[in-house]
Amino acid sequence: MGKVLATKLVSVGHEVKMGSRSPSNPKAVEWAKKAGPKASAGTFGDAAKFGEVVFNCTAGMASLEALKMAGAPNLAGKVLVDVANALDFSKGMPPTLSVCNTDSLGEQIQRAFPAAKVVKAFNTMSNSVMVNPGLVPDTEAFLCGNDAQAKGKVVEIMKSFGWKRPLDLGDITAARGMEMILPLWVRLFGLFQTPNFNYKIVR
Amino acid sequence: MGKVLATKLVSVGHEVKMGSRSPSNPKAVEWAKKAGPKASAGTFGDAAKFGEVVFNCTAGMASLEALKMAGAPNLAGKVLVDVANALDFSKGMPPTLSVCNTDSLGEQIQRAFPAAKVVKAFNTMSNSVMVNPGLVPDTEAFLCGNDAQAKGKVVEIMKSFGWKRPLDLGDITAARGMEMILPLWVRLFGLFQTPNFNYKIVR
Repeated sequence: MGKVLATKLVSVGHEVKMGSRSPSNPKAVEWAKKAGPKASAGTFGDAAKFGEVVFNCTAGMASLEALKMAGAPNLAGKVLVDVANALDFSKGMPPTLSVCNTDSLGEQIQRAFPAAKVVKAFNTMSNSVMVNPGLVPDTEAFLCGNDAQAKGKVVEIMKSFGWKRPLDLGDITAARGMEMILPLWVRLFGLFQTPNFNYKIVR
Repeated sequence: MGKVLATKLVSVGHEVKMGSRSPSNPKAVEWAKKAGPKASAGTFGDAAKFGEVVFNCTAGMASLEALKMAGAPNLAGKVLVDVANALDFSKGMPPTLSVCNTDSLGEQIQRAFPAAKVVKAFNTMSNSVMVNPGLVPDTEAFLCGNDAQAKGKVVEIMKSFGWKRPLDLGDITAARGMEMILPLWVRLFGLFQTPNFNYKIVR
């Protein structure tokens, strides 16, 4: 997911540094080489330091640890777009969530990094859909977070990807609802045998 | 919700007995009087005995107790449509779910009444939408359950209400996904200030 998002971000004009545990992560280095002069790779800390907007595209159950490696000072004041889902595959399929209902990954991250401006976004769709909204016309790109300006920045990015209906659900506690629709998503994926679908709210 | 569904069921030609804790529940008796000769009221047990298809429209956190009062023998072999959500308002707003993630109310009911054919349905929308699908054209009416014939019966009822896209998500464990989208529904309700919306899956 990180690669797909990073490639799209480069394609719409951003400079992107892909962060990994190791600065010589072969996949990240190869991606940066292919993606051209606006792309680079480094540690989680390098990426967090580099970015005005930081995307958390790590596996949800490892996100807090990865963000700790990125470093709280490097995330302070930054827009931190949390794209992750805390899917727990340890009990087999279908996955469960390692946090939900009375809390969410988005809230955990906001609590752990209070100086970051966490915006939950893009977690309700596949990466193919995320960067190709034309596959699912007139559907919703949900987002939530505590900071209006940070959400404005994410809406701007969504629109640059082609999303016509970013839908702001309110403060970061709305991440519960956004994360808890994952089990439905997994069912629909099994049914349709394609990740290329999305939700439209009709009213 | 029970009244709205019961009125609709009568209007499409069914005989309906509304069950309550007491056979002289004033709201149920009044409903039956207004709804005409095909409507009647009684205890939970009376209603369960009467119905070929039984709707659980009780508050989710009280459903297991209400169904015990209805009586396992009265539910045996019956299609039991579980419309409820286990919303817990005891911790304030927004409500949380008293069961989710690794289990669901639909599964709890199926386990507690193994001889009933539980079909989870209609829980993802408001009662106004449930009986007026024209308010939200071309949106999804999800359902799930272990018994194909029981699901067929529910699809038939959905179609008689005007639902054009019943979407069978599989066995009763899909109730997890159906119930876990409630927190998103609650957020959207707060945002739109109307319960007249529904989900459409675009692909």
